[in-house]
Amino acid sequence: MPIDNSNMLKAIEDFPEQCRTALGLAKGMAVSGKIDKIVVAGMGGSAVGGDLLKSYLHDSKIPILAVRDYKLPNFVDEKTLVFAVSYSGNTEETLSAFDDAQKKKAKVVAVTSGGKLSELAGKLIKIPKGLQPRAALGYLFFPVLGVLVNSGIAKDNAGDVNEMLEILSKKEEFRAFGEKLAKRIGNRTPLIYASEQFSAVAYRWKTQFNENSKVAAFAHVFSEMNHNEIVGYQTMAKDKFISIFIRDNHDNERIVKRMDITKEIISQKIEVVEVYTKGSSMLSRLFSALHYADYASYYLALQNKIDPTPVHVIENLKKKLAE
Amino acid sequence: MPIDNSNMLKAIEDFPEQCRTALGLAKGMAVSGKIDKIVVAGMGGSAVGGDLLKSYLHDSKIPILAVRDYKLPNFVDEKTLVFAVSYSGNTEETLSAFDDAQKKKAKVVAVTSGGKLSELAGKLIKIPKGLQPRAALGYLFFPVLGVLVNSGIAKDNAGDVNEMLEILSKKEEFRAFGEKLAKRIGNRTPLIYASEQFSAVAYRWKTQFNENSKVAAFAHVFSEMNHNEIVGYQTMAKDKFISIFIRDNHDNERIVKRMDITKEIISQKIEVVEVYTKGSSMLSRLFSALHYADYASYYLALQNKIDPTPVHVIENLKKKLAE
Repeated sequence: MPIDNSNMLKAIEDFPEQCRTALGLAKGMAVSGKIDKIVVAGMGGSAVGGDLLKSYLHDSKIPILAVRDYKLPNFVDEKTLVFAVSYSGNTEETLSAFDDAQKKKAKVVAVTSGGKLSELAGKLIKIPKGLQPRAALGYLFFPVLGVLVNSGIAKDNAGDVNEMLEILSKKEEFRAFGEKLAKRIGNRTPLIYASEQFSAVAYRWKTQFNENSKVAAFAHVFSEMNHNEIVGYQTMAKDKFISIFIRDNHDNERIVKRMDITKEIISQKIEVVEVYTKGSSMLSRLFSALHYADYASYYLALQNKIDPTPVHVIENLKKKLAE
Repeated sequence: MPIDNSNMLKAIEDFPEQCRTALGLAKGMAVSGKIDKIVVAGMGGSAVGGDLLKSYLHDSKIPILAVRDYKLPNFVDEKTLVFAVSYSGNTEETLSAFDDAQKKKAKVVAVTSGGKLSELAGKLIKIPKGLQPRAALGYLFFPVLGVLVNSGIAKDNAGDVNEMLEILSKKEEFRAFGEKLAKRIGNRTPLIYASEQFSAVAYRWKTQFNENSKVAAFAHVFSEMNHNEIVGYQTMAKDKFISIFIRDNHDNERIVKRMDITKEIISQKIEVVEVYTKGSSMLSRLFSALHYADYASYYLALQNKIDPTPVHVIENLKKKLAE
């Protein structure tokens, strides 16, 4: 395997350890007072952290919203808890949203490894530097969850964490999965689907293929895809696309039936791969499904003789934006 | 032009008239009492109505959420106004969400042309039958807005409506646009982008290409696409994809700059088409941009010798789901 100049594989293999470290980073940080809305402001991987939070706390009585924009919605107020999450601390949208949160008198907690955000923020969780933001998902997610646990908003599920870490530690299994799936994908564009509850996972798969493998990839959810996207399969070419279904043993029975029937219908045209989440807790199921994408997108990059780490086009864009 | 057996063109051309009729359908219907969350439960075009509402009422102090699922979030309660929207009245996800809304003691208003939903609903807005659900967007959106206006939650902007209807009435212009864009797209897969505020529009373009033209199509938003999807362009083939940017004269200046730079970067690989919204009010800008997609997807279907109206695969799926 030729090209991995910056050792993305190491970052991926260290992911369980990152999660373990990340779990401790919110230590003692809590917010007080009435909170009736939670907003996670961030872009890319940081926003995926917000979507994951929504999935993980799907029973929440408090609305949780990921905002990927310069401004926050107008309903953000002093009873809103806003997490401003930016790995570098210099993401312009997140800095702007952070500013907006302060203007709206929200309770704000920043999560960052440095940059302007670390200078501006009052309540701040500092996370380790030196990774590609997309390889820092553990650091971007667990401190946010930690603050919610410390504040009595989310339950502390230590048992879930142990199960998750045990599952993620089986590196050989994930690696074999990733190599095999990369081969199966070949030159085709992956289309990734999951239930609405796992939409953050499907989206993360897409973005990992985009950023690590530098290929087009798209994500959608069940059952919404049954109302529109499925019709497009009528004219799709076998050699251009491949579908990946993220399945979970706890999927609603109608979603299970929809996935089965959809597979039957579209596999007359397009190859369908099914990937099952692992573990019994929601945390394990979410993170096992996410971690598969790390390996699959990594090996797809190598297969295409592409270095998974650098994202030159984003660096180039940022330079031009600063002009 | 050979194939339009069920006269989809007529439905598209009648759209301004549909909007005019739809505006009157909520007459007198209002909800009272404290409302601190608004949820639009629906699938496909009905859910797009919810997303559009969010865009149109972007200044809202009340969170607005489109839910495309069998269950509503746990924060739905007696202070939540839930619109259950289903053109046929038999969409199983929406019926399930309607049931859930009642269990959660939300204030519920149903919008439908008939079916089970019309039998079950207390507060009901009946809309005309006989269209494909996706061709009924005016009926699915304006009654919801009407209830909010009648309830003092949204402003009554009669002037906006007049401007919008005038713009939409220029059928020749829309038709010429659609024919030209369909030719330009050819056999390539359209990738549609808009600002976060116009995300419902980009998504509607995608679904219209899926359902009317029966082709693959995907949508994403600025600036999030700058953080991941843009990297995939590195390996995308010129003859496989075409990008369409929905632009608005009121786009945030950083979004404008991002779109300009992104166009410059990706058009080295992939053709980029820019489409501007029309009019000065948000209503005109949203609906002009939406209406372009009706025509473009229609002519793309004819160009591919495909009847735009029937969506056999969805009918087939529904039959299998009922077994």
